[in-house]
Amino acid sequence: MIPAPFLLYLGHSADPLAIKTSRGMAMFRREDCVGEFRHDDCPLTLGLPRLNMKEAAAAGARTLILGIAGAGGKLGPDLIEDSATALEAGLHVASGLHQRLRDDPRLAALAQQRGLELFDVRDPPADLAVGKGERRPGNRLLTVGTDCSVGKMVTTIALTEGLRQRGIRADFRATGQTGILIAGEGVAVDAVVADFISGAIEQLAPARSDDGWDLIEGQGSLFHPSFAGVSLGLLHGAQPDALVLCDEPGRPHMRGIPGRALPDLAECLEANLAAARLTSPDVEAVGICVNASRLDALAARRLCDSIEDRLGLPCTDPVALGVDAILDKLCPESSTRSTIAFR
Amino acid sequence: MIPAPFLLYLGHSADPLAIKTSRGMAMFRREDCVGEFRHDDCPLTLGLPRLNMKEAAAAGARTLILGIAGAGGKLGPDLIEDSATALEAGLHVASGLHQRLRDDPRLAALAQQRGLELFDVRDPPADLAVGKGERRPGNRLLTVGTDCSVGKMVTTIALTEGLRQRGIRADFRATGQTGILIAGEGVAVDAVVADFISGAIEQLAPARSDDGWDLIEGQGSLFHPSFAGVSLGLLHGAQPDALVLCDEPGRPHMRGIPGRALPDLAECLEANLAAARLTSPDVEAVGICVNASRLDALAARRLCDSIEDRLGLPCTDPVALGVDAILDKLCPESSTRSTIAFR
Repeated sequence: MIPAPFLLYLGHSADPLAIKTSRGMAMFRREDCVGEFRHDDCPLTLGLPRLNMKEAAAAGARTLILGIAGAGGKLGPDLIEDSATALEAGLHVASGLHQRLRDDPRLAALAQQRGLELFDVRDPPADLAVGKGERRPGNRLLTVGTDCSVGKMVTTIALTEGLRQRGIRADFRATGQTGILIAGEGVAVDAVVADFISGAIEQLAPARSDDGWDLIEGQGSLFHPSFAGVSLGLLHGAQPDALVLCDEPGRPHMRGIPGRALPDLAECLEANLAAARLTSPDVEAVGICVNASRLDALAARRLCDSIEDRLGLPCTDPVALGVDAILDKLCPESSTRSTIAFR
Repeated sequence: MIPAPFLLYLGHSADPLAIKTSRGMAMFRREDCVGEFRHDDCPLTLGLPRLNMKEAAAAGARTLILGIAGAGGKLGPDLIEDSATALEAGLHVASGLHQRLRDDPRLAALAQQRGLELFDVRDPPADLAVGKGERRPGNRLLTVGTDCSVGKMVTTIALTEGLRQRGIRADFRATGQTGILIAGEGVAVDAVVADFISGAIEQLAPARSDDGWDLIEGQGSLFHPSFAGVSLGLLHGAQPDALVLCDEPGRPHMRGIPGRALPDLAECLEANLAAARLTSPDVEAVGICVNASRLDALAARRLCDSIEDRLGLPCTDPVALGVDAILDKLCPESSTRSTIAFR
């Protein structure tokens, strides 16, 4: 396991979506975070104390979380330089980037000299098998998206917590670096060898017979030309009984691809249902989750109502409005109301 | 490059589909093959002289091609033992399996001692980028399939040769181990890290402006629960102007998955066209290719005629009947008739 407490890295980032791993840690493991590291040109903050590496070590931090991610997951010169400084200050370093920390000779040497560890959480399991699509027992929900970074992980965690608050066994199955860092386990599905995408998910959420739910974090979008292959293999491997579609209203274009419009919600949901039926013929949509953090509460509620009317499914912002409407549809017999989990 | 001539490995295989790499080499590079290696329990043959490793070396063979493939691409004890015998006889060894030859300590040591090479053709390029789906110039055709191993590679090569015989520039873009061994280049798309599936194909078939065609070998099937993610990423990366759907009539179930029926041809074609439109809005289907090798010539012709009537597209067996009907639709202005390329 990666030693807490953590220092969260923002670096030079100016793009709120690029720091989503650090933000996820600040949101879901805040009690384990002593501060944030950012350069002077970084306009973003997670609301944690701004610390340099030495200050963080003095404040008790044990690991720098390189919680930033661009397409391609490259470990650029800035990240290497700052990681080296962290190691020199006595911090372990954890990263979810494709490019591995241990493959940088300078960082590998520094870590060895100081007796510190480099954690590459995107390393796939060694023993993956090809997926088979055989029906397996268990209750599985998958979040899917109109795009990358629209709130699939947050939604999945909120649904997991909500089910638990209703007394139903539920496990969050992380498929991306942020989720894995939060949960402490999972598989970075975009980092497995392509032949094993669906097999990795069959292994992550295997047959279960305790009436509990596996809540599987989706990745990418069937409509994203960079990552749709990952999304489809994940969908087939998840063999979901239930889908929740996630969206960020008002996004101007698909993540990283100016000029490419997001799909219509209904079209996106139907495409996911059609594809999911290959391994889960009775799959159903149980709700829509929007990230309405740019809207005020009234506008968010109105937006959700209008989507509910249009698609005939509960729609909510899981952070602002909770996920009860979706849980009521997913498990109608469960009566305990969850409270709003996050704010 | 992998030194010819070759000895083709069949091993203990009893499944004709498992030896498709060796068969592909025997079909398309027969002049470079001195023989086949098979154990006594192997009922298959490629019609080449049966040689053991020493006999093959004496006959001039320079490389053993481990041309067999099961799901998962494992390098089992038999393959390791036989590869060691080949190295001891002075042969290089080439493999398209996921598990790499060089990762077996015994083979690595033997190769080093004898000054021989281990070729792992599934190694992906080091410099892959994430796909973008941006429109790029060029003419691209992709073969897609109802299932794995239904003739996509053979079809792609036949179309490439046919275009060349009509005086049109055409390049075969290999995406699997067999195609790469035949062409001497390409990228094994099922072996790239999942995030880079579409990016790998954008790099394999980049923008071109010489009026020539890239003919891209498809992999798997959108309807195969093990591999559909690879097929979709490949489809998006290929950005095809034209699709050819490949099928093996009469196959009892999806490859490796007893009980799972193959998709209907029209449904499969429509799903591929719908998915392809994400990066190539004007994509068109230009033909159907069937592997009718189990039928006699008359039955094959009748089958093709009935598919033509049903789908309104030219249908042929590329090996038995050639690909002229498809080329006439693809490039109506080209008049030179190709001959049947293979028999």
